[in-house]
Amino acid sequence: MSSRKLSKKERQEKFLKVIEEDPFITDEELSDMFNVSIQTIRLDRLALNIPELRERVKKVAKANYKKVRTIAEAEIVGELIDLELNKRGISILETDSSMVFKKTKIVRGHYIFAMAESLAMAVIDADVALTGVANIKYRVPVLAGQKLIAKAEVTKIRGNKYFVHVKITVKDEQVFRGKFILVSI
Amino acid sequence: MSSRKLSKKERQEKFLKVIEEDPFITDEELSDMFNVSIQTIRLDRLALNIPELRERVKKVAKANYKKVRTIAEAEIVGELIDLELNKRGISILETDSSMVFKKTKIVRGHYIFAMAESLAMAVIDADVALTGVANIKYRVPVLAGQKLIAKAEVTKIRGNKYFVHVKITVKDEQVFRGKFILVSI
Repeated sequence: MSSRKLSKKERQEKFLKVIEEDPFITDEELSDMFNVSIQTIRLDRLALNIPELRERVKKVAKANYKKVRTIAEAEIVGELIDLELNKRGISILETDSSMVFKKTKIVRGHYIFAMAESLAMAVIDADVALTGVANIKYRVPVLAGQKLIAKAEVTKIRGNKYFVHVKITVKDEQVFRGKFILVSI
Repeated sequence: MSSRKLSKKERQEKFLKVIEEDPFITDEELSDMFNVSIQTIRLDRLALNIPELRERVKKVAKANYKKVRTIAEAEIVGELIDLELNKRGISILETDSSMVFKKTKIVRGHYIFAMAESLAMAVIDADVALTGVANIKYRVPVLAGQKLIAKAEVTKIRGNKYFVHVKITVKDEQVFRGKFILVSI
């Protein structure tokens, strides 16, 4: 998108398209995209009757939580925006300053791990599942405020063992990947 | 130890020896060992002027926190009871019911992961370190109330990469092991 400022009308029209294509875009991302302040984005949302990201995510997540069998809604770190049991799942987590190391302002690894592990668990079609093994790699440090998108895929099921791959990205850049073997008991 | 009940005097003498050998034994473990109620153990501790486990651990941990360079005291999950930078470290975590899955009463994996990862980080002699890779295995489910002991060993240092093995046990049974590669930045 060009850095020329669009008129309010132009912007709000584009706004609707962008939100339709990527319903989980943050106000920060919109502000960068349209080269306007976050305050302007908020006023646009208000004018267009588009709820804040948190609400949009919650609304979509609601139906998915009902499908989850292994763990309780509150135990999933992030919001579950897509779920097909034994196949795949997607969750979103907006990181904040409560999650970072004091010294580096980098999000603590175990929050990212917990997001991945709880999504891996949520996609399993079993009453009870536990993590057996995990091989994980942190690729890029995550900063407070960045929006994490986790995608899980069930790659294999052998007896009571479920093999799940989870990839976490920030704006299409992979920041973490994990391979989990979960066991239903 | 026999299940015959010792006299109060006998018990309190043995008590002192046991605490000296294993200063981080829990009241529950002592109660099993002496075949008396936890209430009796508490009264024994009071009579012998031995503080509760939490206080004993905190006292020992205090000096160790000062040695840690990479992360802040509050960021270590568990209490650090031994630390030799770039060599080894030991931490203790008393699990409780706030840490469990609702459904199974089993301690959530990411608490155990966080204990291991933060200990791995604490043993590194660097200003700033991040986890790069981790291979982990959960061997036995952990229940609320169980005391976890994590031991970390730095097995190799190559440039800015630190290889750390962490083993977590409950009463000498291994419940988790993890291999971490940390990167100082």
